[in-house]
Amino acid sequence: MKFKESMKTLNAIEIIVRKRDQVELSTEQIYWFIQEYTNGHIPDYQAAAWLMAVQLNGMTRRETVDLTMAMVESGDRINLSGIVPFAVDKHSTGGVGDKTSLVVLPIVAACGVPVAKMSGRSLGHTGGTIDKLESFRGFQVELSPERFKQLAKENHLVIASQTSNIAPADKSLYALRDVTATVPSIPLIASSIMSKKLAGGADAIVLDVKVGEGAFTRTIDEARTLAQTMVDIGVDAGKAVTAVLADMTQPLGTTAGNAIEVHEAIDTMRGEGPSDFLEHCIVIAAHMLELVPNTDYYHNFEAAKQAARQSIDDGSALSKFRQLVHAQGGDPNQVDNPYLLPQARIQDTIAASQAGYVTRIDARQIGRAVVDLGGGREKKGEMIDHAVGVETLVKIGDHVDAGDLLFRLHANDENRMAMALGWIEQHVITISPSPTESLPQFYGTIKGHPA
Amino acid sequence: MKFKESMKTLNAIEIIVRKRDQVELSTEQIYWFIQEYTNGHIPDYQAAAWLMAVQLNGMTRRETVDLTMAMVESGDRINLSGIVPFAVDKHSTGGVGDKTSLVVLPIVAACGVPVAKMSGRSLGHTGGTIDKLESFRGFQVELSPERFKQLAKENHLVIASQTSNIAPADKSLYALRDVTATVPSIPLIASSIMSKKLAGGADAIVLDVKVGEGAFTRTIDEARTLAQTMVDIGVDAGKAVTAVLADMTQPLGTTAGNAIEVHEAIDTMRGEGPSDFLEHCIVIAAHMLELVPNTDYYHNFEAAKQAARQSIDDGSALSKFRQLVHAQGGDPNQVDNPYLLPQARIQDTIAASQAGYVTRIDARQIGRAVVDLGGGREKKGEMIDHAVGVETLVKIGDHVDAGDLLFRLHANDENRMAMALGWIEQHVITISPSPTESLPQFYGTIKGHPA
Repeated sequence: MKFKESMKTLNAIEIIVRKRDQVELSTEQIYWFIQEYTNGHIPDYQAAAWLMAVQLNGMTRRETVDLTMAMVESGDRINLSGIVPFAVDKHSTGGVGDKTSLVVLPIVAACGVPVAKMSGRSLGHTGGTIDKLESFRGFQVELSPERFKQLAKENHLVIASQTSNIAPADKSLYALRDVTATVPSIPLIASSIMSKKLAGGADAIVLDVKVGEGAFTRTIDEARTLAQTMVDIGVDAGKAVTAVLADMTQPLGTTAGNAIEVHEAIDTMRGEGPSDFLEHCIVIAAHMLELVPNTDYYHNFEAAKQAARQSIDDGSALSKFRQLVHAQGGDPNQVDNPYLLPQARIQDTIAASQAGYVTRIDARQIGRAVVDLGGGREKKGEMIDHAVGVETLVKIGDHVDAGDLLFRLHANDENRMAMALGWIEQHVITISPSPTESLPQFYGTIKGHPA
Repeated sequence: MKFKESMKTLNAIEIIVRKRDQVELSTEQIYWFIQEYTNGHIPDYQAAAWLMAVQLNGMTRRETVDLTMAMVESGDRINLSGIVPFAVDKHSTGGVGDKTSLVVLPIVAACGVPVAKMSGRSLGHTGGTIDKLESFRGFQVELSPERFKQLAKENHLVIASQTSNIAPADKSLYALRDVTATVPSIPLIASSIMSKKLAGGADAIVLDVKVGEGAFTRTIDEARTLAQTMVDIGVDAGKAVTAVLADMTQPLGTTAGNAIEVHEAIDTMRGEGPSDFLEHCIVIAAHMLELVPNTDYYHNFEAAKQAARQSIDDGSALSKFRQLVHAQGGDPNQVDNPYLLPQARIQDTIAASQAGYVTRIDARQIGRAVVDLGGGREKKGEMIDHAVGVETLVKIGDHVDAGDLLFRLHANDENRMAMALGWIEQHVITISPSPTESLPQFYGTIKGHPA
């Protein structure tokens, strides 16, 4: 007599049943499920049912950490210990006009902390650092391991696209989540992000967690829960993690696109950028610096902030950036004169039709407009137009007069320009007679250190 | 500019999102999803995520009815109107030792109400009428439409296996539910059952909803919810439906198997069967009869009950059964002498090791033992051994003395017999020093009539 279920301890259906019935999964069950799914032994339909059960019933902290580590162990783990003395990484949960890495990484390197960073491409309404850097003629994002290591050692700054087999389980699960409405689950988002950071060899991590319409997490509560979950995962994996909750109701700075964001980043490193974006970069850089042992900044946020600001004021951050572009095959003249970056053929503007206060700007819809102008991609692998984009010339809380410029659009196609103008006028901004407060840039910080 | 999501009203992901977020689906969305899934345009992984969302978030009455009718319309609809004057069907939600149809259908036919019934095979721990009938040498369950119609007209009783393309959407979804832990959802179970009954051409339906360890629904509350949901579906589809909540904590009658259940059914039609089983059959038959217009039983349960009992007492139910077996190619001598039915090579018994009261009998474990003896199947298409099975010789509440027989097992393999004996002794029965009440046979009736 074969009472199969009592003899087989690990079984996909039983694991789905437990999650469905809100029974905590064991470490062994999570590792087995992720391993068998990645091997192709568990079919997509069982993983999809499990993902929906996780989406609706959640995961405990222990389960979330186990899921993260199971995904880390599904592929290669990068060892940066021979490349940089201490690998402090940063990650943004994704926003519109989020060119932070372009400024923060040069600041950190200029402050004497070597940075060897793997980065991603844009997807959906959010941009990616690698695409932005490819605005430079000839810029190489695919580097051999030897070249990557050499640049980290010589220049203290290198940024490459992720080529190794990092967290393949996350890659498969993410693709499945995308088509089964199981993306917006806190434990699934947190484990996806943290598995890539941990497999990527980070010793400490700063998370730039975006809050608002342009972000994944639209409310402060959601963002705080996501941030705390990621900090918990990092701590349980033995890493120091700082999460910064940052506003993404409206775009960060002015620009959303690729070359125009690079231009704004260069302006910012020259001390001529928008104050909100500069402040954001200083804070993120300082949080990174204060996590690095054996430096003057370790556990000293104020010293770190001062050093970061100094690197802007004395031009050392910009020099680091110029060195990065040059070393990876880009044209440094485009750094010196950003008007040499790709320029769109058509520019047009939207002006206020009446006086009033800006009470709403929808960053998500701006991000969508950038995609539809050709500056982003709906699906992996699509080509993008680096020149196009949208400048948002006002902030929530500003007073405008009739005729004041609100947006400047950059396009290479008349039809797309016309449609984007109409879309933005209709869906992106609200101007009201009564004033409203300007938005804070930050909503708090969550820190975690391993015991 | 192509804002795809705003242009496409029907989209699998959006339908999953709505169900995930507890937003009621429209009729159009449900029909579209079921149609596209059945056509193979929606992949299993999206259907699996949707099923888990339904499992965890439920469905409204309107959604459940729409799902049922979408599944009905996914295949053929049988028209019995030229075959019987009024098609009253019965369905059992599945139990152990549930040979009810074998007795009820001859009773109804003997009372002058023609029965043309499509029936199913056993799966898992529950049996199926078709398998039981195949205990008769030569019995034909696959009949041409002409022969099916002819037998209904001439004999007023025909039972065939389902061969047409009935509710193929249900077939696909059920197979997927089976491997994604989404079987035990009330709206999914109810719509699955009712779609088959409605597509099968029933004018009125009696549902034998089992409650207890041996059933799908283990508590009275669950069973009542399932029954009410099925009644609601039937009423909204314009049919009269009666649901009877019947105990399935312990097996119905004595036997669980195939030939031994047929033997017990024949004994019962002879007036020599177990009283609980006879009572069950009379009640189910009477509920069927009272739904049939233009008869003396219409809306007269007591008259129907009397007629049903009379058909046992005067032998007319047994004659109908003998006629059925003969007409469909079976050997009527096996009706006259049931010992000519397949007999297992080995019989063994389990006796009480101590005196006491029977406080627990687990019908589900008995059903499992029958499967493991070879009398049922784990997967569709597996062969079964008609001779094997388990007789349960006591009921909960009975007093036994040490040495009294509790079970008689029928097997064709020594190893299987030994293992089944051990399993049953260990897992199926509890005998305690303190007495316990015997169980009721019924827990209530739910009736629904279209307005």
